[in-house]
Amino acid sequence: MKDNNATVKNWRSRLHEIIYEADTPVGKWFDITLFILILASILLVILESVASFDREHHQLLYISEWVITILFSVEYIARCLSLKKPHRYIFSFYGIIDLLSTIPLYLSFLFPGSHALIVIRAIRLLRIFRILKMIKFIGEASKLKDALWESRTKISVFIFTMMILSVIIGTVMYLVEGSAAGFTSIPKGIYWTIVTMTTVGFGDMVPLTALGQTISVIVMVMGYGIIAVPTGIVSAQFSRQSKLNNIHINTQACPNCNAHNHNDKAEYCYNCGNLLNEA
Amino acid sequence: MKDNNATVKNWRSRLHEIIYEADTPVGKWFDITLFILILASILLVILESVASFDREHHQLLYISEWVITILFSVEYIARCLSLKKPHRYIFSFYGIIDLLSTIPLYLSFLFPGSHALIVIRAIRLLRIFRILKMIKFIGEASKLKDALWESRTKISVFIFTMMILSVIIGTVMYLVEGSAAGFTSIPKGIYWTIVTMTTVGFGDMVPLTALGQTISVIVMVMGYGIIAVPTGIVSAQFSRQSKLNNIHINTQACPNCNAHNHNDKAEYCYNCGNLLNEA
Amino acid sequence: MKDNNATVKNWRSRLHEIIYEADTPVGKWFDITLFILILASILLVILESVASFDREHHQLLYISEWVITILFSVEYIARCLSLKKPHRYIFSFYGIIDLLSTIPLYLSFLFPGSHALIVIRAIRLLRIFRILKMIKFIGEASKLKDALWESRTKISVFIFTMMILSVIIGTVMYLVEGSAAGFTSIPKGIYWTIVTMTTVGFGDMVPLTALGQTISVIVMVMGYGIIAVPTGIVSAQFSRQSKLNNIHINTQACPNCNAHNHNDKAEYCYNCGNLLNEA
Amino acid sequence: MKDNNATVKNWRSRLHEIIYEADTPVGKWFDITLFILILASILLVILESVASFDREHHQLLYISEWVITILFSVEYIARCLSLKKPHRYIFSFYGIIDLLSTIPLYLSFLFPGSHALIVIRAIRLLRIFRILKMIKFIGEASKLKDALWESRTKISVFIFTMMILSVIIGTVMYLVEGSAAGFTSIPKGIYWTIVTMTTVGFGDMVPLTALGQTISVIVMVMGYGIIAVPTGIVSAQFSRQSKLNNIHINTQACPNCNAHNHNDKAEYCYNCGNLLNEA
Repeated sequence: MKDNNATVKNWRSRLHEIIYEADTPVGKWFDITLFILILASILLVILESVASFDREHHQLLYISEWVITILFSVEYIARCLSLKKPHRYIFSFYGIIDLLSTIPLYLSFLFPGSHALIVIRAIRLLRIFRILKMIKFIGEASKLKDALWESRTKISVFIFTMMILSVIIGTVMYLVEGSAAGFTSIPKGIYWTIVTMTTVGFGDMVPLTALGQTISVIVMVMGYGIIAVPTGIVSAQFSRQSKLNNIHINTQACPNCNAHNHNDKAEYCYNCGNLLNEA
Repeated sequence: MKDNNATVKNWRSRLHEIIYEADTPVGKWFDITLFILILASILLVILESVASFDREHHQLLYISEWVITILFSVEYIARCLSLKKPHRYIFSFYGIIDLLSTIPLYLSFLFPGSHALIVIRAIRLLRIFRILKMIKFIGEASKLKDALWESRTKISVFIFTMMILSVIIGTVMYLVEGSAAGFTSIPKGIYWTIVTMTTVGFGDMVPLTALGQTISVIVMVMGYGIIAVPTGIVSAQFSRQSKLNNIHINTQACPNCNAHNHNDKAEYCYNCGNLLNEA
Repeated sequence: MKDNNATVKNWRSRLHEIIYEADTPVGKWFDITLFILILASILLVILESVASFDREHHQLLYISEWVITILFSVEYIARCLSLKKPHRYIFSFYGIIDLLSTIPLYLSFLFPGSHALIVIRAIRLLRIFRILKMIKFIGEASKLKDALWESRTKISVFIFTMMILSVIIGTVMYLVEGSAAGFTSIPKGIYWTIVTMTTVGFGDMVPLTALGQTISVIVMVMGYGIIAVPTGIVSAQFSRQSKLNNIHINTQACPNCNAHNHNDKAEYCYNCGNLLNEA
Repeated sequence: MKDNNATVKNWRSRLHEIIYEADTPVGKWFDITLFILILASILLVILESVASFDREHHQLLYISEWVITILFSVEYIARCLSLKKPHRYIFSFYGIIDLLSTIPLYLSFLFPGSHALIVIRAIRLLRIFRILKMIKFIGEASKLKDALWESRTKISVFIFTMMILSVIIGTVMYLVEGSAAGFTSIPKGIYWTIVTMTTVGFGDMVPLTALGQTISVIVMVMGYGIIAVPTGIVSAQFSRQSKLNNIHINTQACPNCNAHNHNDKAEYCYNCGNLLNEA
């Protein structure tokens, strides 16, 4: 009985190694295969949405869809089995996404319309970030994330200010322009304000009165200038980050006078002339 | 008589504490309620402007409008009563906004059209910034404001240059394109120039002649490049700001005169000449 | 004879002082009047271009036009007379602009169509920068100009690369999309590429084929990313500039050990403890 | 025989000097001529595409086309002959482009449609960068390239994230808006997402439903904010670069071992421990 148990344990830990780790060759191979499968499944969903393509290759798409769904189902079950406490995976963000990206096709037997839900699979693309752990890219990504996270309060204040401005300006534009120019309600006005302030400028709603155009000009110049704020925040953050990194590159201190900030190639202290590394 | 006076004073100072301060639990509770009321009042104005929604729920909106107006009126009166010299509040920016956001509904009995003025209420959203004093966000907000304020002359020069450029280019485009492309007057040309230079590009007015399109290309590249200027200004400002903050990281204080802000390498106090670290 | 000559000299130098300098009260008054006159002349040109306004107030505009033209003519003659060698002014940039902004109205007697040239007057707005000499704004403006001038080679390389890219992409789009989508010639393609790359996006020409849309996506992401380059250049320039400024703020050096970079408030050297200012 | 061989060598090395180097007057002259010829050939292709111009000056364009093609062919042959191992040039990027920009006209005798391929010539514009070697611009260009190259991983992560976001948002918009608003397939949705996120905003596809417009607002604000990331990356890179350059400003070299790049405050050589300034 104990032996059997050990075998199960062995089998489970090996599966775990393959699925959740990327250090072994098999683990790497699994991750790359999964990466390709996810890309393929996204491509399938995209191609299926192109009416002309779907008409010609419907059979092919249908079969591929099923193949990928079954493979994903197997992967889901394997992920559950390989863990001692699978509930932690099942109720995690990725666990739910993994489940949701297999279910829709099964559901479509019961409820015809539910096939559209297959699109949730697109969220699986996020798993790519997890797979990328093996590459050094993740380091840079976490730097980016850190910089954005560090400046989160500044950015929140900024977005909050923009929201209030949008409501006020959107309301004013609704009163000034009215429904002739498409400003049929305040939400429409807010939508237009954000379209304009972010310099997107679709042109679906456009001020027609002189006053409306004058306000637009102010909104545009404001939006054009305001972009400096998030950019400035993130730039300063990156600059600081890269400075901090520079400091960590070289922690050498003189054994005699303890001066810091030596050149990377320094052999002698610039302050007292002592040898830096007395071997 | 004196006792009664004291009671009034007590009552007034307690009211003041609740309304103007956020340190006590009641004060906090008041601020949060006000915050929610303002949001609700804005939402009401927005929903009212949506024709289909207003048609179905007109009664509900009408009653809510009155409830909020009465609550705002009570708040306004309480604010006046809680101060010894209420005229300082009444004629302050917030005082006027607070008054203006209650009046329109009352006025609508006398003048039917004046109801639209209720939109002034949107400006009350700015009060949110004052309420946010309690959160640490305000620190970041003031940093943002400082950075923008510090670079105000640079930004003014920039906006001024852009305005002159817009007038010149707008005039040229009016002459080049003429009314066929919608450039019916110089103001229209200036409007188009700003729409283009800020990279908004609505597309409501578009150059049709080869010369006009050539000028457009120059305006666009200029606008695309010019954005670097405000961004650069604000970035540099943020960088400097974060550097100034870095100086405070060194928390060394002179054991003799308690002066702060020493250089990172300082060995002697810059204020009294005392050794900083008497080992 | 000599006396008369001296009077002329006196009279000329006084006129010069008034017109070209802004230190005396009369000089300041002259500059401000000129500033207002230029603004008024621009406003006139702008209002004249608005058909509805011109129809109603034609007489008023016509008279104001003449008044300003005569004042500008007097100013032009005064500028010439006040200089010993007026040809240096006459053939300078401002001299030519000043002349060109008075001539059109006179010419309109001989050639009816030439009145439109009055628009050259808009260029006189640039004189505002010269008038602003009196305010401290000019310091900031020259900083901006310096930062842009310092990065001129970097910016040239950038604009040059963008031009080459536009020609290549514009040509490709002309081949891919053809005249159905409005890409009737390569210049049109280049125009579209710049409209897209600078994120203006008028929407007057839009890719219709799948291939064209795919290329568009690349162009857009490229344009969206490329903006980082001029912004980065100018930001770095501003940062460097503000750093250089910081250094110049405090040039104090210890009289004993000659250490630099003392705190602004430092009284004792941080390096040797010597008094910094031995009075 | 040997003599003859030497003459060939001489002749080849002289040709090589003219074509590939820009130090001699003839080499400079060759480069400038080539520069002008490439510009002229591009101009020809552009003018040819303008239907009205082509109709009037067809003969002129036809002859110029042939003249330039023959000159380019001669240049191509000369480039091949001037090298001992011409295959390294022939199969290089520039070699292939040079060949491809001469062939189409010859091919057009055999296959009528192939004339359009002449557009490949636009890529020859890239050669301008090589010609510019002679100017100091190349230094700045390489700095730009370095800065972009250094931040390549950060930028890749950024573009990758944007791509994933576009797929997810594009899919959602396809489901929300449907074909009424032009979202006929997921690729169309992705195209719209990128048009919106990069703040281009053509306006050819525009959300019509309230939900779609709400999502648009989020996409726009996101796109507006996200631009801070590449800008921040490149700004920080430029700042760092200009700081590294600053180190080189200190031109102190050790009098003993001639090591460079000493700290600004260094008194002893970091390489040999020698005093830097033996007074």
